[in-house]
Amino acid sequence: MSRYAIGVDFGTESGRAVLVDVANGSQVATAVHPYRHGVIDESLPVSGGVPLPPDWALQDAEDYLEVFRATIPAVLREAGANPSDVIGIGIDFTACTMLPARADGTALSSLPEFRSNRHAWVKLWKHHAAQPHADRINDVAGRTGQGWLERYGGKISSEWFFSKALQIVDEAPEVYAAADRLIEAADWVVWRLTGVETRNACTAGYKAMWSKRDGFPDDAYFAALSPGLSGVVDAKMQRDIRTVGERAGGLSDEAAGWTGLLPGTAVAIANVDAHVAVPAATVIEPGRMVMIMGTSTCHMVLGREVRDVPGICGWVEDGILPGFVGYEAGQSCVGDHFAWFVENALPARYGEEAARRGIGVHELLDEKAARLGVGESGLLALDWWNGNRSVLVDTDLGGLLVGATLATEAEEIYRALIEATAFGTRVIIENFVANGVAIDEIVACGGLADKSPLIMQIYADVTGLPFRLSASDQTPALGSAMFAAVAAGPAAGGYATIEDASRAMARLKDHAYEPIARNKAVYDALYREYVRLHDYFGRGGNDVMKTLRAIRAEAKARDAADDRATLSPVAG
Amino acid sequence: MSRYAIGVDFGTESGRAVLVDVANGSQVATAVHPYRHGVIDESLPVSGGVPLPPDWALQDAEDYLEVFRATIPAVLREAGANPSDVIGIGIDFTACTMLPARADGTALSSLPEFRSNRHAWVKLWKHHAAQPHADRINDVAGRTGQGWLERYGGKISSEWFFSKALQIVDEAPEVYAAADRLIEAADWVVWRLTGVETRNACTAGYKAMWSKRDGFPDDAYFAALSPGLSGVVDAKMQRDIRTVGERAGGLSDEAAGWTGLLPGTAVAIANVDAHVAVPAATVIEPGRMVMIMGTSTCHMVLGREVRDVPGICGWVEDGILPGFVGYEAGQSCVGDHFAWFVENALPARYGEEAARRGIGVHELLDEKAARLGVGESGLLALDWWNGNRSVLVDTDLGGLLVGATLATEAEEIYRALIEATAFGTRVIIENFVANGVAIDEIVACGGLADKSPLIMQIYADVTGLPFRLSASDQTPALGSAMFAAVAAGPAAGGYATIEDASRAMARLKDHAYEPIARNKAVYDALYREYVRLHDYFGRGGNDVMKTLRAIRAEAKARDAADDRATLSPVAG
Repeated sequence: MSRYAIGVDFGTESGRAVLVDVANGSQVATAVHPYRHGVIDESLPVSGGVPLPPDWALQDAEDYLEVFRATIPAVLREAGANPSDVIGIGIDFTACTMLPARADGTALSSLPEFRSNRHAWVKLWKHHAAQPHADRINDVAGRTGQGWLERYGGKISSEWFFSKALQIVDEAPEVYAAADRLIEAADWVVWRLTGVETRNACTAGYKAMWSKRDGFPDDAYFAALSPGLSGVVDAKMQRDIRTVGERAGGLSDEAAGWTGLLPGTAVAIANVDAHVAVPAATVIEPGRMVMIMGTSTCHMVLGREVRDVPGICGWVEDGILPGFVGYEAGQSCVGDHFAWFVENALPARYGEEAARRGIGVHELLDEKAARLGVGESGLLALDWWNGNRSVLVDTDLGGLLVGATLATEAEEIYRALIEATAFGTRVIIENFVANGVAIDEIVACGGLADKSPLIMQIYADVTGLPFRLSASDQTPALGSAMFAAVAAGPAAGGYATIEDASRAMARLKDHAYEPIARNKAVYDALYREYVRLHDYFGRGGNDVMKTLRAIRAEAKARDAADDRATLSPVAG
Repeated sequence: MSRYAIGVDFGTESGRAVLVDVANGSQVATAVHPYRHGVIDESLPVSGGVPLPPDWALQDAEDYLEVFRATIPAVLREAGANPSDVIGIGIDFTACTMLPARADGTALSSLPEFRSNRHAWVKLWKHHAAQPHADRINDVAGRTGQGWLERYGGKISSEWFFSKALQIVDEAPEVYAAADRLIEAADWVVWRLTGVETRNACTAGYKAMWSKRDGFPDDAYFAALSPGLSGVVDAKMQRDIRTVGERAGGLSDEAAGWTGLLPGTAVAIANVDAHVAVPAATVIEPGRMVMIMGTSTCHMVLGREVRDVPGICGWVEDGILPGFVGYEAGQSCVGDHFAWFVENALPARYGEEAARRGIGVHELLDEKAARLGVGESGLLALDWWNGNRSVLVDTDLGGLLVGATLATEAEEIYRALIEATAFGTRVIIENFVANGVAIDEIVACGGLADKSPLIMQIYADVTGLPFRLSASDQTPALGSAMFAAVAAGPAAGGYATIEDASRAMARLKDHAYEPIARNKAVYDALYREYVRLHDYFGRGGNDVMKTLRAIRAEAKARDAADDRATLSPVAG
């Protein structure tokens, strides 16, 4: 008799459930459910909803619960599985995606009296309107010598938990006051499945400045940020942080009703979409870096010892796997980079050729770019169209392309953009290695890795490291199912440890992308040029990118003022 | 009774005759004739013609004579003019466009025994295969301390006369030996019209290192370049260099037969297409710079005194107008820049919108770019897609674009490219002014100037100078007609001086583009950033552009070697 675990992966636009055979990790059934309200970045979906300010990105917490109701019955049906064969359920989520809630778990935005208050809604990971609050967090941390700052490469992001919390305190004190709890959406959906509020070490560590050794920042620090934030951890959060792989609780009767599963089915502690993928990509030891390659790229590597590595997103003990230090870095513009190019810089004849041949434009570009020898484009780019996350941690940097001639063609630019992201990855790898975190092999997963052999070979050639691919096309959901099997435990047919689960359930594709020595040699020369430009424009040699941003901001402000002048009634 | 002069402008693809009323410069008739063989850059138009090497660009001298036969009868017909009403004919030509000829004026390529020899054909201005020879010219000039080098901003171009002559000596000594004359095509067509071989000061000065004070470089220098080139001036050229505006001779009976004009009609000394436009753009005094804006831009300004200005194309006494020092500078990528963009980086939806609205894509882009405030794109470019002519004189530089984000749109890039060419113009202007050559106003002519008010306003705002436009849409041909009227002289109904001709026959459009102070202020800030990048990448701070070129050349060589290996029969 087969035993199953279900992993549910909450992405930016939709949730996805995968039903997995616990014995070997094979994916038996899958179902996807788009969020009814998607990403809310224009106006609240309520009557008379006013436009949201720039950089806002919200979601409706109720949409997440619909995912359970829609997808879990669907995978059970598709697999023909008996609810009693399902030993556990695990979830992973985008992060930091957080919301204010009542003590009973009700999302504040579900209450009629708060439905029109934008600060009551879920703040999605890419809500970027809390930059001033992040700036204050960094400023106060620097001035007061907060030791935890080093763990995050010296800088806290506007995307993270306390940046968003501080924005609520500042801009909507009434929401903050009404919120009994401030909680990651990851933990909130587990709460709603089990009736038990738990907090996971992954989001606490990577997004909320918590560490296993020191806990959260002390209250004097929060009070220094804002008197309103004083006491936030004890009042609205929790100090009992649970390790990933633990059992959060059993499925509640209510949630059993939503899903068709049996009450009491094991539910795992929540996890983050990127981090949960690590053991699902077979990585349960130091030295092998996992890259989740999509619109952006997340880099994760395990270590046995603590190292402060500058410019990374952070390190967390037990943050990825219990017993290891989990290091994370990031590149903010990867798939987005190529999508921008196709949308904004691809001549019509490429689309026409792709249509004529019945292939996609990315496929066509891959084919044309693959015909170019390494170095043949004569181009070099800095992959900063969306700023630089690691290792410069600077959202105000901009893109750069150098070397164009009147003979430069689109596939050459496209290839240069790919190469630039590969050089960016090499900077991250070399930065880890130079600071004592070994990396000998890469395991890639995500859409880009699966779709483009060209990209994978370029990455192998640029970094000089072999690139393997996760066998699953749903690595995060598989990872969540693996953690569910651990939460269920061996007695129920699961596993004692995530390592055991990984050995049984995770697999790589057979093909490895090995670096080609002659390509590597040319890329070494190009990489030297990349690093020189990277340091010149990224480390203060020439702040032209910031100057251009400032000039642009002034120009837009002038424009807006002109528009107001035009629209205002003229006196006299 | 009206008196007419005819100007014939020999361009890159075609020749154009304009019949002009001598009294007021009005253009009465015009006719264009494309060269039968166009630009010959793939293979010679002979049976069994083998492919030409890269960077070659040839023409067939006979095609030029066809222009006379086709266009002059046509303009006479169109104007209903009597041949006796035509007092003179003048020509202007691309330069340096040169050919080997027999003592009787026959082009070597017209002789059956040389028809298949590529070095016997006209080398067009943009024949760029003589770069190694230009390098030798510069190297030997530097080592032997040639004083004339300063007149050319310190560097001789591969396009110029002796670079091309040296390539013939090196690669085809049999052609060099058989050539009684080496001559600019400009002088050659005048020779064929009159039967008299003359040499004009404009091409001699700007393209062949001649000066009024010192003549040509001495023979020891030519001998040092190559023993084969020893004695070249006396053997194959002429030391009697004639000032523009002089009469070269009267129309021969043969040429009268081609054209329908009367034998003996005055023919002016040859001129260069850009330089001839200066008085036709009303400029007959220092302080007003003429810009011919097309695929590239040529900048000309008059001075009363000799100044060595670094990085310009050169200065020549009497080179533009008798009695003045004529200074010339250049930008190698202007209209070509925008054409490259439209061809290689414009998304399909722009073409679709333009087609829907029945306008051109440049017009659409101008409209969208004009809606952007100054500085609003957040972008800055170095306009070096085709290297940099002035003031860096470096063909190995490449283009640069900085500041792109995921929100960057095509019209923003397009505007940034326009602005980059305007910043390049400002560098040239400031370089002239800093070296004692005054510039207070610009007169622009050429297709770009006529077509795009956006470009003109950006140039005015960037440079802080008023921009006027030549009233003629055929300024070079008008200039040639003006010089024809001077060659004919007052007794025939023409003019005593080119200044007199200019005052009577040349006109500006009424509208002037005046700098807008608030735009200028923002452009000043952007220009500071431009200059910083210009100097960093252009003056040795970071030679990445050259490194990328070198890596590209190696990659292409490797590719070619691989192809050869693939094509060769494999032993054993």
